[in-house]
Amino acid sequence: MIRDHTLHLNAVDTQQLTRWMKSALAAGVQAGENPFGAAIFAVDGTQVVAANNTVNSTNNPAAHAEVNAIADASRSLGRSDLGGYWLLATAEPCPMCLSAAVIAGIRNIAFGANQVVVNEAGYGGLGICSRELANQFNCEIVLRGSILGNDCVRFLLNNRKPN
Amino acid sequence: MIRDHTLHLNAVDTQQLTRWMKSALAAGVQAGENPFGAAIFAVDGTQVVAANNTVNSTNNPAAHAEVNAIADASRSLGRSDLGGYWLLATAEPCPMCLSAAVIAGIRNIAFGANQVVVNEAGYGGLGICSRELANQFNCEIVLRGSILGNDCVRFLLNNRKPN
Repeated sequence: MIRDHTLHLNAVDTQQLTRWMKSALAAGVQAGENPFGAAIFAVDGTQVVAANNTVNSTNNPAAHAEVNAIADASRSLGRSDLGGYWLLATAEPCPMCLSAAVIAGIRNIAFGANQVVVNEAGYGGLGICSRELANQFNCEIVLRGSILGNDCVRFLLNNRKPN
Repeated sequence: MIRDHTLHLNAVDTQQLTRWMKSALAAGVQAGENPFGAAIFAVDGTQVVAANNTVNSTNNPAAHAEVNAIADASRSLGRSDLGGYWLLATAEPCPMCLSAAVIAGIRNIAFGANQVVVNEAGYGGLGICSRELANQFNCEIVLRGSILGNDCVRFLLNNRKPN
């Protein structure tokens, strides 16, 4: 899918993504919750939402940070189409979260720690990472990894899943 | 992943799944909402929940019937692990919903209409269907299609996405 704003969206540079990722990371720091944060930004730098994983407090296994951010953003904006926004996630989105973002019209995603680190922290997933799955979708998706990478990796490894 | 209850779970027959699917289909019939329903059943036939797609009423693009059913079931049961339950969906789950189910521990899924019909009704997705994605996961998933197939297909085609 070709979008008019693709060039503009892709023009967001690493420095800007790094600033935005700090919001996602700050959101992810929640005692008692799994260590994942997400945020949604407009290209002009306006933050729409930041959210954390709430699986533990809600018992909802689908309440990942990205899914929560998408729900909050669509509520806040009053529409289900989030095309034109960037999704920031402290870790490489799982297949559910990647799919949710793409269903929401999001085509630009930046993440911090990659799936190998997620696995190492004990939150290993379904055996297929976002980069592999995105290649199989019928639309172009920009996936930028290692944004604020060191901080995101440290956050995950310092908050491993309890045995 | 080998689960002790796999044989028992798989022993659920088509007649039983067809009965359960009637609940999913009934849940999906909601004026103003997209035509999808889902239900979660225990092997002994106890219905945990039935839910419909609420994308239109909530603006949440991730509020598919299966995701709603998983959220409702985990709230109702007070736990995030839904291992041992069957998920019934009137249409082949999209990648987000399939992933959500598997993350929730669900390994047995039955659906009515397949992805070709979903596309025909205008709700085409990401270009990869559940059967293709399930094969790439690192666990065994039982996917049973065409359960109450005629009724589920008719429901979708009679409620095509408005232009």
